[in-house]
Amino acid sequence: MGVLVVGSVALDSVKTPFGAVENVLGGSASYFSTAASFFTEVSLVGVVGDDFPSQALTLFRDREINIDGLERVPGKTFHWAGEYSYDLNEAITLDTQLNVFEQFRPKLPAAYQDSPYVFLANIDPELQLDVLNQVKHPKFVACDTMNFWIQGKLGALMAVLQRVDLLTINESEARQLAQEPNVVKAARAILQMGPKALIVKRGEYGALMFNGSTMFYAPAYPLEAVYDPTGAGDSFAGGFMGYLANVDDVSEEAMRQAIIMGSTMASFNVESFSLERLRSLSYAEIRDRFRAFKGLVNFADLPETT
Amino acid sequence: MGVLVVGSVALDSVKTPFGAVENVLGGSASYFSTAASFFTEVSLVGVVGDDFPSQALTLFRDREINIDGLERVPGKTFHWAGEYSYDLNEAITLDTQLNVFEQFRPKLPAAYQDSPYVFLANIDPELQLDVLNQVKHPKFVACDTMNFWIQGKLGALMAVLQRVDLLTINESEARQLAQEPNVVKAARAILQMGPKALIVKRGEYGALMFNGSTMFYAPAYPLEAVYDPTGAGDSFAGGFMGYLANVDDVSEEAMRQAIIMGSTMASFNVESFSLERLRSLSYAEIRDRFRAFKGLVNFADLPETT
Repeated sequence: MGVLVVGSVALDSVKTPFGAVENVLGGSASYFSTAASFFTEVSLVGVVGDDFPSQALTLFRDREINIDGLERVPGKTFHWAGEYSYDLNEAITLDTQLNVFEQFRPKLPAAYQDSPYVFLANIDPELQLDVLNQVKHPKFVACDTMNFWIQGKLGALMAVLQRVDLLTINESEARQLAQEPNVVKAARAILQMGPKALIVKRGEYGALMFNGSTMFYAPAYPLEAVYDPTGAGDSFAGGFMGYLANVDDVSEEAMRQAIIMGSTMASFNVESFSLERLRSLSYAEIRDRFRAFKGLVNFADLPETT
Repeated sequence: MGVLVVGSVALDSVKTPFGAVENVLGGSASYFSTAASFFTEVSLVGVVGDDFPSQALTLFRDREINIDGLERVPGKTFHWAGEYSYDLNEAITLDTQLNVFEQFRPKLPAAYQDSPYVFLANIDPELQLDVLNQVKHPKFVACDTMNFWIQGKLGALMAVLQRVDLLTINESEARQLAQEPNVVKAARAILQMGPKALIVKRGEYGALMFNGSTMFYAPAYPLEAVYDPTGAGDSFAGGFMGYLANVDDVSEEAMRQAIIMGSTMASFNVESFSLERLRSLSYAEIRDRFRAFKGLVNFADLPETT
C-alpha cells in the first residue's frame, strides 16, 4: 500500500540558537515523503522552479520516492525563511515567497490516482480539493492546515474537512478553528466539521488524538539536542501515514502505533538542520526509539486490593 | 506510613473565566494534605491568624488530617489573590499578603518528628530547613520551590536541595534554576545539585520525571471543564506522596504509579474552585481515573517482524 502526498518542496533559510543554513531542501512534502519512505512507497506531488538544484533530488531518489508528480517549471522555487529563539516551539517567519507555487495546479500522473493513502499537507485548501478530486477511491485521507487558511479560505477548508478521515493541526490553530479555548471542547467541535479523527500537535509536549469518543495522549521524546524544529509536524505526519499504509490498518490500535511512529520520526528530524538526520537514519534506530517511547510512558496498574 | 507537610494555609481570592471566589480555603499545605489524606495519615505544619474561620477546619477534620502542628496566632491569615485568563496554565498574582506567615517559625509536635515521608511545600527555603532539622530519620523527603526563592534565597535553597530525595518544580522554574533552556539538560544540571529525582511540572501538558538515568512522561488528563487551576501542583504532590507513603515503596515503579496518582488528584482538583471537588471525592472515582490514564497512553509494541 502506498501513500500520496501533495505539498511544498522548498528552499529554506533557517536560523536557530544552534546555527543557520541557507537555501536548503525543505517544504512539507519533502519532510513528509522522506519520513514516510521508511515504511511504504511514496508518490510526491509538487512543483519546483528552474533554480532547484538537481542534487537536492538525490535524497528523493535515494529514498526511492516517486517524483513523477514533481513538476519543474520556469521561475523560482518556493522559499521560506524563519528563525527560532530558545523557545523552539514557535517559528518566527521572516519571509515567504510562494514563487512557482502561486500558479501551481496539481495534475496527478495516472499511476498516482489509485493511491489508497493520501496526505494533503498544509497548502491552499483549494489545491487540496484539486488533488482529492483526482484520486479515485482513497482508503484514508488526512490533511493539515494553518491559521492563514483558517482566516483566508475557511469555505474551501470546510469543504476539505468534510472529505477527510483525519485532520492534523497545531494546538493554537485547533483553538482558532473551533473558536474555543479548551482543547477537548475544541476537538469535539472540529470532529463535527467532518473528520472522523483529529490529531492536535503540541510541539515538544507531544500530540493528542481524538478518534470518535477515545483519546490518546502521545508524548514527544524529550531530547537534549534539538537543533531545528522545521519539518517536525510533516515528518510526524510522514511517519504516521507511512506506518498506516505499511500495516494497511486504520483501527484505533494501528492509529496509536502510527502516532508513536510519527513522534519517532519527528524526534529524529529535529536533531539536525533540513533533512540531514532523516537522510542518515536506519530502521534499527527507528525501532529502538519507538520502543524507548514504551519505556517513557509505561506504568503498572493499581493492585486489585486498593 | 504517614506523611508530614509544611506549607501555607491560606485564604484565597481567585478569578477565572468561569467564576470568582473570595477568601476561600487555599494554600499549598491545604491542597497537599487533602489530596494525600485519601492514601495515608497526614500531619500538617503551618500557621493561621485569628481571622481564620473555624468552619474552614472542618475539611481537615473530615479528612482526618492531623492539625496539631497548625498554629493559630494573633493577626491575619496568609492571603493570595490571583486571576487566570483562558490560558489556564499561568496565574496572574494580584496580591500576596504573607501576614502571620512572615514571623512563622515552625515547631514540630513530638509525634511529627518520626514522620517517614516529608513534603516541604513551596515556602521560604530557610523554613524548609527548619522543618527538616526537626525530623529524625525521614525515609523520603520531597520539596517544591518557585522563582521568588531561586532569585532571593538561592543559598538556602541549595542547602535544601542537598538534603531532599525529590524536587518538584514548574518547567519555567526548572529552566531558571539550571540556567538552561533545554529541559533535559536542565534536569541533568538540577540532579547535580542534590536531589536523586526531579519532577518537572508542565501544567496541562503533564509532568516529566527524571530519576537517575530514567525518564517518565506523565500526561495530564485532558478535561473539558477546568474551572480553577489553583492548587493543581500541590494536589499533584499530595497524591504522589500519599501514594508513596501508602505503599511504602520508593522504587522507580512505585514512583511512576505515584505520579499518575498525583495527576489523578490534580485533575479532580481543577474541576472546581478551592477544595470543593476534593471534598466530595470518593476513592472509587480516584481508582477509575487512574485506570483511565492507562487507556490514555496505552499502545501496542511493534510486531517482531518489522
